[in-house]
Amino acid sequence: MADAAKASEPSQKSAPGEGSYALRAGEVAVELPAQFDVSLYFIGRIRTPWQRREECPKNGGESDAVCTVELDPRWAEGLSGLETTSHVWLLYWMDQARRDLVLQSPRHYAEQRGTFALRSPVRPNPIAMAVARLLRIEGATLSVVGLDCLDNTPLLDIKPYFASTDAIPDASVGWHAGCKR
Amino acid sequence: MADAAKASEPSQKSAPGEGSYALRAGEVAVELPAQFDVSLYFIGRIRTPWQRREECPKNGGESDAVCTVELDPRWAEGLSGLETTSHVWLLYWMDQARRDLVLQSPRHYAEQRGTFALRSPVRPNPIAMAVARLLRIEGATLSVVGLDCLDNTPLLDIKPYFASTDAIPDASVGWHAGCKR
Repeated sequence: MADAAKASEPSQKSAPGEGSYALRAGEVAVELPAQFDVSLYFIGRIRTPWQRREECPKNGGESDAVCTVELDPRWAEGLSGLETTSHVWLLYWMDQARRDLVLQSPRHYAEQRGTFALRSPVRPNPIAMAVARLLRIEGATLSVVGLDCLDNTPLLDIKPYFASTDAIPDASVGWHAGCKR
Repeated sequence: MADAAKASEPSQKSAPGEGSYALRAGEVAVELPAQFDVSLYFIGRIRTPWQRREECPKNGGESDAVCTVELDPRWAEGLSGLETTSHVWLLYWMDQARRDLVLQSPRHYAEQRGTFALRSPVRPNPIAMAVARLLRIEGATLSVVGLDCLDNTPLLDIKPYFASTDAIPDASVGWHAGCKR
């Protein structure tokens, strides 16, 4: 029975303090909880033109590249009706990020910020979300525009974008207003 | 070391086929994968006025109730800078939902739809996301408006809402356009 499934061992890539993920000046790490609470299935992969982080656009709006979302065929029927939507949310797993930072100093900002004030992949649960424009669905494959993630990124969820609840055009992020990216 | 942490046993509440979560006409379940891939920490709880699903507003925009997000104090420094944002994304875990449906027949819609065409809590990874208006932050507690979830819902993440990437006011969901809720 699936509910008895165990989480596999987390990837070594997410070990804190390794390689390029060592702390920078002003960054603060905390001790992670001893236990996880719940677990996720990867339900597919996102295929993009970008193999290395340096190649990725700074945000999805900067690229017109057509990316594909390859859903595990097990879930293909779950796409029924999605073809009528103009935009979709993709939730995906940032599998190369450390999880224990509370204060971060991203390279492109001058000051340190709290993890929850940033969209950085470094966070206790490295779930990223991005809106993409849906071009078409063929079988279990979606063609979309507007992503900025690495090729082969693990997919967690697909949701329809509802402007009535998701679009807040006048929302503001004060700390970011004066920043150049 | 935190990376060696194991996921706890999934809640019995998420067992497929139980109680009020039995299949309705037109609903289709698939066999879940035998293994989970990665695991999550609950980083806090969302406190709302709603103790039962029937009490929850249909969507967050329907209620002006002030809800609170109680972040685990371990992560409190991660809020630094978030006080300058007008709106936040909250990601949370729908811990009472079954995870194996690909086609669903929600009570308030006439037709069955694919899981990924719906915002239903029933999905392979029951991660919900909602925009909330941020009123204030005191210590590790956020006061917000615009939620519709049950009291004590487990929190997974807090992110700033960036209108530049998140707001698509003209996005459409064709199948929903003719529906009354």
